[in-house]
Amino acid sequence: MTHSFHVSSQERHLKWSQALTPTLTVPSGSEVSFDLLDGGHNQIRPDNEATALRDFNFEMTDPAFGPIYIEGAEPGDVLVVEILDLKPGDYGWTALLPGFGLLADEFEAETPQLKMWNLTDEGTVTRQGSKRKLAVLKPGVAVPVRPFLGVLGVAPAVPGELSTIPPYASSGGNMDCRDLSTVGAKVYLPVNVPGALFSCGDGHAAQGDGEVCGTAIETPMKARLRLTIEKAADWTLKGKKGLECPHYITPKKGREDIEEEVLADKGEYAALGIHEDIREASRMAVRGLVDWLQAEKGMTRVEAYMLCSVASKLRMSEVVDMPNYAVSCALPLDVFIDE
Amino acid sequence: MTHSFHVSSQERHLKWSQALTPTLTVPSGSEVSFDLLDGGHNQIRPDNEATALRDFNFEMTDPAFGPIYIEGAEPGDVLVVEILDLKPGDYGWTALLPGFGLLADEFEAETPQLKMWNLTDEGTVTRQGSKRKLAVLKPGVAVPVRPFLGVLGVAPAVPGELSTIPPYASSGGNMDCRDLSTVGAKVYLPVNVPGALFSCGDGHAAQGDGEVCGTAIETPMKARLRLTIEKAADWTLKGKKGLECPHYITPKKGREDIEEEVLADKGEYAALGIHEDIREASRMAVRGLVDWLQAEKGMTRVEAYMLCSVASKLRMSEVVDMPNYAVSCALPLDVFIDE
Repeated sequence: MTHSFHVSSQERHLKWSQALTPTLTVPSGSEVSFDLLDGGHNQIRPDNEATALRDFNFEMTDPAFGPIYIEGAEPGDVLVVEILDLKPGDYGWTALLPGFGLLADEFEAETPQLKMWNLTDEGTVTRQGSKRKLAVLKPGVAVPVRPFLGVLGVAPAVPGELSTIPPYASSGGNMDCRDLSTVGAKVYLPVNVPGALFSCGDGHAAQGDGEVCGTAIETPMKARLRLTIEKAADWTLKGKKGLECPHYITPKKGREDIEEEVLADKGEYAALGIHEDIREASRMAVRGLVDWLQAEKGMTRVEAYMLCSVASKLRMSEVVDMPNYAVSCALPLDVFIDE
Repeated sequence: MTHSFHVSSQERHLKWSQALTPTLTVPSGSEVSFDLLDGGHNQIRPDNEATALRDFNFEMTDPAFGPIYIEGAEPGDVLVVEILDLKPGDYGWTALLPGFGLLADEFEAETPQLKMWNLTDEGTVTRQGSKRKLAVLKPGVAVPVRPFLGVLGVAPAVPGELSTIPPYASSGGNMDCRDLSTVGAKVYLPVNVPGALFSCGDGHAAQGDGEVCGTAIETPMKARLRLTIEKAADWTLKGKKGLECPHYITPKKGREDIEEEVLADKGEYAALGIHEDIREASRMAVRGLVDWLQAEKGMTRVEAYMLCSVASKLRMSEVVDMPNYAVSCALPLDVFIDE
């Protein structure tokens, strides 16, 4: 039989640590449901204006819900997290927060900004022949709802307290990887301490690669996960002293899914960034796409920057032709639903 | 009427320079066909063994074919390159060359390596219900043939001679971006000198994001392009003092194309790299995928590294959660055609 457990929105921590007291102890293979506050600790509410961001407390960001002690987990094992179900809330928000985001310095004068998304059936739209909901940025511009969890992590490999904001190679955390934790995906996390001490959080209704403006469509999320330990001896990377970094596998897509996922139908528009510093290359690429959206699509800089953050693809196009790197920031043109 | 022109495999240069003598002068809107040597200047031949790489002359790499003077082009204008047709040769090659590639230091003992691909109808395979050719790495492992040009560039913004190996923000060149120049794509290049002085080269039958082992499926290519000048005054980014970096737009994909492009059907396997240095993060991600391919798919390290170079997706997953960056190296599992 499968054991089922629940973690409530009160069972959260704001630091990663080996010393945390587990909120639950579960057998390997258990299903756990979570009631997650959003990545801003629900400080932003659906009726808020951008001025509410002035009181935003960064020390409350990226709460992790748990931790869960999984019986039998030992350092060197691998924790397999299967994403069984994700239900975003009725609203989501995207913000420019002071000093946060890839182009924070260039958007200082326009910060703070807040976009509130209506994620109810009434507030979203669908394409003909598709069942996938689209969250509406503005008339004619909508982003497929594609929920995932930004935070999936275990107790760190080192003692002491670590911030929940950055991700860590040896324990995961706020990886903010859009493909990693959609429904049907499996995530593989290294185990550093007995019981693993798994936590998750930071529900995103949608995000592009990179989360460039600093936020996705942040939303409270109900999640259902299965947590299974693979012993070091059974793990396929055995002989490699555990997992160096989290891995993941995305779900198979049937023909029906491809029919729904019509993102690629209209191609992409992309800007390249080329620079010896990869970060500068990525800044250049995003800047290029923002410029294009302004010039070609009549969007404001803020709308364009947010659209990049929730729908664009930021790929490392070239990493071997030294001294310069090439990064592309690509936007699926299906976001323009009326064309 | 459309003017048609031809550039032969003899009309090549090994440096970018404002001072090159044009091989052709053409009106804006002309179609130009090219007969391109591969990115290794055809030093590698179909009957070669890996030992031939010991005599490989790096000074001959990435030849650019042209340059073409486009009438009416002035600094500040934009050159639009439409990719009308690309025909790879009957063979292609992938190599590990000394000191070249993202993990060159870790593959030093195994370098040089040479993989010769048979790209003829007889040497390739197709999937059921698909017309797309697959190039065979080894039995059961094949990569969709998806040709593009690694090199597309114009005379640089500065005087002097520049190597054709790295790409440049203000003039393009060896961008090696897999999505930028497939058939149906349009590339937008800044114009720095009168006539633009456009050249191209470096045909790839397939490549993953990043070209991580240093080479793609390198192949001689026949290309047909349309070259059109958009005057500064007409360019949609006007007021931005020209184009800061190349842009591109990928073709629309109809339902039929999606039927052929079954890459996503089986999902992807990916490894993350997380590090404060993006390059280290990308190395970590590729290393993770190589480890997985070795352990799970029984591939040699060299096969796995090459497969990453020609089929994996290297995306910047996260660039705002400082101090660490997250990069993912993702492999479409359709490359395993027998599963």
